[in-house]
Amino acid sequence: MIIVMKPGSKENEISDITRVLESLGLSAHISKGTQVTIIGVIGDKRVLRDVPLEMMPGVDKLVPIVESYKLASRTFKPEPSIIDVGGVKIGGRELVMMAGPCAVESREQIIEAALAVKKSGAQVLRGGAFKPRTSPYAFQGLEEEGLKLLKEAKDASGLVTVSEVTSERAVEIANDYVDMFQIGARNVQNFQLLREVGRLKKPVLLKRGASTTVDEWLNAAEYIISEGNYSVVLCERGIRTFETATRNTLDLGSIPVIKNSSHLPIIVDPSHAAGKSQYVPALAKAAIAAGADGLIVEVHPNPRCALSDASQQLAPDAFDALCKDISKIAEIVGREFKV
Amino acid sequence: MIIVMKPGSKENEISDITRVLESLGLSAHISKGTQVTIIGVIGDKRVLRDVPLEMMPGVDKLVPIVESYKLASRTFKPEPSIIDVGGVKIGGRELVMMAGPCAVESREQIIEAALAVKKSGAQVLRGGAFKPRTSPYAFQGLEEEGLKLLKEAKDASGLVTVSEVTSERAVEIANDYVDMFQIGARNVQNFQLLREVGRLKKPVLLKRGASTTVDEWLNAAEYIISEGNYSVVLCERGIRTFETATRNTLDLGSIPVIKNSSHLPIIVDPSHAAGKSQYVPALAKAAIAAGADGLIVEVHPNPRCALSDASQQLAPDAFDALCKDISKIAEIVGREFKV
Amino acid sequence: MIIVMKPGSKENEISDITRVLESLGLSAHISKGTQVTIIGVIGDKRVLRDVPLEMMPGVDKLVPIVESYKLASRTFKPEPSIIDVGGVKIGGRELVMMAGPCAVESREQIIEAALAVKKSGAQVLRGGAFKPRTSPYAFQGLEEEGLKLLKEAKDASGLVTVSEVTSERAVEIANDYVDMFQIGARNVQNFQLLREVGRLKKPVLLKRGASTTVDEWLNAAEYIISEGNYSVVLCERGIRTFETATRNTLDLGSIPVIKNSSHLPIIVDPSHAAGKSQYVPALAKAAIAAGADGLIVEVHPNPRCALSDASQQLAPDAFDALCKDISKIAEIVGREFKV
Amino acid sequence: MIIVMKPGSKENEISDITRVLESLGLSAHISKGTQVTIIGVIGDKRVLRDVPLEMMPGVDKLVPIVESYKLASRTFKPEPSIIDVGGVKIGGRELVMMAGPCAVESREQIIEAALAVKKSGAQVLRGGAFKPRTSPYAFQGLEEEGLKLLKEAKDASGLVTVSEVTSERAVEIANDYVDMFQIGARNVQNFQLLREVGRLKKPVLLKRGASTTVDEWLNAAEYIISEGNYSVVLCERGIRTFETATRNTLDLGSIPVIKNSSHLPIIVDPSHAAGKSQYVPALAKAAIAAGADGLIVEVHPNPRCALSDASQQLAPDAFDALCKDISKIAEIVGREFKV
Repeated sequence: MIIVMKPGSKENEISDITRVLESLGLSAHISKGTQVTIIGVIGDKRVLRDVPLEMMPGVDKLVPIVESYKLASRTFKPEPSIIDVGGVKIGGRELVMMAGPCAVESREQIIEAALAVKKSGAQVLRGGAFKPRTSPYAFQGLEEEGLKLLKEAKDASGLVTVSEVTSERAVEIANDYVDMFQIGARNVQNFQLLREVGRLKKPVLLKRGASTTVDEWLNAAEYIISEGNYSVVLCERGIRTFETATRNTLDLGSIPVIKNSSHLPIIVDPSHAAGKSQYVPALAKAAIAAGADGLIVEVHPNPRCALSDASQQLAPDAFDALCKDISKIAEIVGREFKV
Repeated sequence: MIIVMKPGSKENEISDITRVLESLGLSAHISKGTQVTIIGVIGDKRVLRDVPLEMMPGVDKLVPIVESYKLASRTFKPEPSIIDVGGVKIGGRELVMMAGPCAVESREQIIEAALAVKKSGAQVLRGGAFKPRTSPYAFQGLEEEGLKLLKEAKDASGLVTVSEVTSERAVEIANDYVDMFQIGARNVQNFQLLREVGRLKKPVLLKRGASTTVDEWLNAAEYIISEGNYSVVLCERGIRTFETATRNTLDLGSIPVIKNSSHLPIIVDPSHAAGKSQYVPALAKAAIAAGADGLIVEVHPNPRCALSDASQQLAPDAFDALCKDISKIAEIVGREFKV
Repeated sequence: MIIVMKPGSKENEISDITRVLESLGLSAHISKGTQVTIIGVIGDKRVLRDVPLEMMPGVDKLVPIVESYKLASRTFKPEPSIIDVGGVKIGGRELVMMAGPCAVESREQIIEAALAVKKSGAQVLRGGAFKPRTSPYAFQGLEEEGLKLLKEAKDASGLVTVSEVTSERAVEIANDYVDMFQIGARNVQNFQLLREVGRLKKPVLLKRGASTTVDEWLNAAEYIISEGNYSVVLCERGIRTFETATRNTLDLGSIPVIKNSSHLPIIVDPSHAAGKSQYVPALAKAAIAAGADGLIVEVHPNPRCALSDASQQLAPDAFDALCKDISKIAEIVGREFKV
Repeated sequence: MIIVMKPGSKENEISDITRVLESLGLSAHISKGTQVTIIGVIGDKRVLRDVPLEMMPGVDKLVPIVESYKLASRTFKPEPSIIDVGGVKIGGRELVMMAGPCAVESREQIIEAALAVKKSGAQVLRGGAFKPRTSPYAFQGLEEEGLKLLKEAKDASGLVTVSEVTSERAVEIANDYVDMFQIGARNVQNFQLLREVGRLKKPVLLKRGASTTVDEWLNAAEYIISEGNYSVVLCERGIRTFETATRNTLDLGSIPVIKNSSHLPIIVDPSHAAGKSQYVPALAKAAIAAGADGLIVEVHPNPRCALSDASQQLAPDAFDALCKDISKIAEIVGREFKV
């Protein structure tokens, strides 16, 4: 960290800061520039977390130099992590495809979806049971009943499962049914929930929030890992911007940035970014070309009858065609996806 | 709601939609334009929440005409709501000032803060006990111990209190100590938490999220109200934009917009928007001039020693000067604030 | 267009609007809903451009139904346009690669760059001579001297050329030297400049602005086309968002949206979006997978010595490796790129 | 400026950088931290503008410490500037009110507007003659004819005038008619135009762009000042964000930030931010309370007949009421406005 002093800061202000730093076991390295003086802080900055340096006389601002997360960072663990979800490996050479309906609606629907997406190459079945909806009057999911049906579809298809948890209670319930918890975009900074899934050791799919920076997102992962659960997979799903032609603006630049900063795998959700099923294949292919470790795609056996997010779910045949394209792009970028 | 058909949509596509609408007790009003046909949907659209009209053949898009919230809307209740927090009225002629430290740190600190802000005219004491922090390694608050100290400060000062709750467990604990729950920006779409505080009937201060539209914010309020708790006060605290010179971009335009769309009171948090204490008074005065029903301001007896958000907390003398200015502006905009 | 009336609007307010519409040769189609009345406006809305309907008594808001651009829209011209730049076709089956240094710096540099990018498969040479720079003290380009060198590099390599124009004077000068004008992101709504290049009939590469919606961007294209110049190629280069890990957030979702709304070709600039050369290949491959008609990539014979945007320019060998990958992805998405 | 080296950077990489800096007359100050080494650069960094340090081996990133503008900065000129526009002083104790219609439409309209706004206390008459419009089919302004009418209104009312210039040609024409040039939001980085008005020495009202940071905005001012024209007044008019309930998000936080960083006066345009006249007074009063040096407000003698931006223009009586409120708020914040 660097402390930038105000123009015209005084000697005693600088020496006061040096004294504070040294009392905490840190060193201060002073550079006097032509306009301002800067102080480099050397040592483990975590001792500073309760010290309001920015309020000391003469201080203009603090400039962080290294990231605030540790366990999620590539510096801490240079080789990429491979996360095991019930035997499915995420982050290795093989791409992972998660697919299924936005929400579990009925036994027939989820089993039909499971068999269809498996046939096209998916290894993980998705299906929402606790649905976070903007309006309290919108369909909120089948809750435990939905998770039971998801488990039945797992048994029928042999796929492992992922489903969103939106509260501590939902975590407790879902723990008996699913192979991977999903933390949705709206809960990426629900720190209590992050700690909760951190304590349980089951793999976690951590979506990026609509206005979360890459740095904040990795700090959210740090919450989970610092509880002892290293099985975190990141999921880019688009950020909120001024553009409304798509539902969110998919930030594929986050893929190389994450690969550079962290050892965690990253997959992409093109469905929530696109908002319209016709735009999904373009974004899905782009994600794989950009280096994603997999995808999570909304697929509904009969999109016209879906109870939520109807317009963005693919029909099984469109999904099958997409998987074939993904398989070919995978090879070009040094990955593998078996259809 | 209006259904916009694709250019060249067919007669039978239009009649299919009409049939679906009518089967649900709605009427369809068809307008054939020179380029496209539109269908006005007449009746209570809530029956449509599980019907994916946007997937029907020939449909281009749906255009909502009236807002999706009901109980929070001005149409539902034209006169402004006045919320009672332990005898303090929010939303009436008198402005309300909430003030206190970012986090409760010690008995001395919170009592000193309480007495100071009361002297300047504050009616509500704020103090965080459950602190949501971006990094798991930052100070997380004193939790229940902090709430006990806040209660002591209430007893010592006679002020009522507000404190943030970040989980169901926190709600349960805080329920015994505070007069008003605060839902923070990161939890504005933590719907489980919203329902929880909705069931308890204690007044709720609902902050706007960093990337929440006014419409989504009022839908979050609707979650609370639809559980039976009408005592909701909104709090504008800035949104996330590309500008980094301030911590958030305070959107004072939301005040007249909310006043136009909803009967709920709205106060403003200039401290989190500014991020630097020197910018707080300008934004605080602006908020009152724009028509806010009050403010929530971070005040610390000794900002240089604060354990969190040190740089944005005002010292008591700066707060006192601010209150005097607020009092004068209040009069000009037809309000009152006694210092 | 739809006129949404305020709740409780009066009969005579509605009939006043009807009268105004009819006096202009339009029809009004009235739908009375349970909460509000809406008026569908039928006919050519351009007659309304000088009529402030939104100020008429009882009107709440106007909702546009069809886009405001005509000549740039897919409705006007359903088949994709193919733009000819000195014999290079943009928008057909074959992808186009534009490459070269950010700025023309010297004869050696630009000729070396031209020969290098040509060898890798580029068909168009880029090189800036008029550089828009945030600070007046940054390198501003060699202006006419730079264009002369670009022309020499064209003659030496056989590539056609594109270069940015930032003012009417620059257009006048560049007209003698380049095969395609580039309108940069900062000038996408410099309407005078758009009209100017519209009058000249030379192909135009129209970059998206940092905060330009797809709709505004197509309206900017409309300015050029409405002067008679149909040779417009769009260029997505990232938008400004809250995320700072990359220079801009590349919005690849704009590709399927544009393909759906317009007949104009669209290429992608991954260099300005990434801001760092190490992130460029991922974004470049993603763009082609998403359906872009080509790329414009910054390549410098010796990036370490570049006078502008050094950190985002690729070295020739990295560019060559990228082109080989692009060629393979092209095939999978039904396109062709010869290396 | 600080150069942050990559973790594990080598001694010779550091000494290479030191050598380059010293060859340019700068000093290097090296701090070796526990994780990374940083190099403080001491001296006038402008000699570095053509040196791509970020490409040198071992360099991770460059962190600027002092702003890139000089002449616009408060460090360069600590006391606030007062700009004289035909005798009207902007930036002193007295607030300045600019008002008038969005566009000059007719002799009657502009003269009526001038007399009305003068009566309410305005000192400057605004009126657009060159209108930048998103669509080429929208009303584009009366151009020179409009400026002549504006001049007539000046003569009739005694007000000085401001009008937008959108091109070099417009500058040339307007130079004969107006007292102050306005550079609109879309042209804030039209650097050619900035230099042009910089050379003419007539006062310039420089609007902030929809996606311009405070830093970029002050760099735009620097373009004008560096040509010799110090008479620059900044104008905050809202930025583009995800929120669409208002036309733009007015960033009043920019006022204290600008006052802290620059000596230039700053006024606020509440009309373009609000987009609806009913929201204008709230934002106008807020701007003055936040410390703005004045306002520019759209006022139309008959808003219902306006040819552009009808919905955001105030009628004269609403403007008069606003001026009375402004006058009272002015006093409270230590300013003066005579109505």
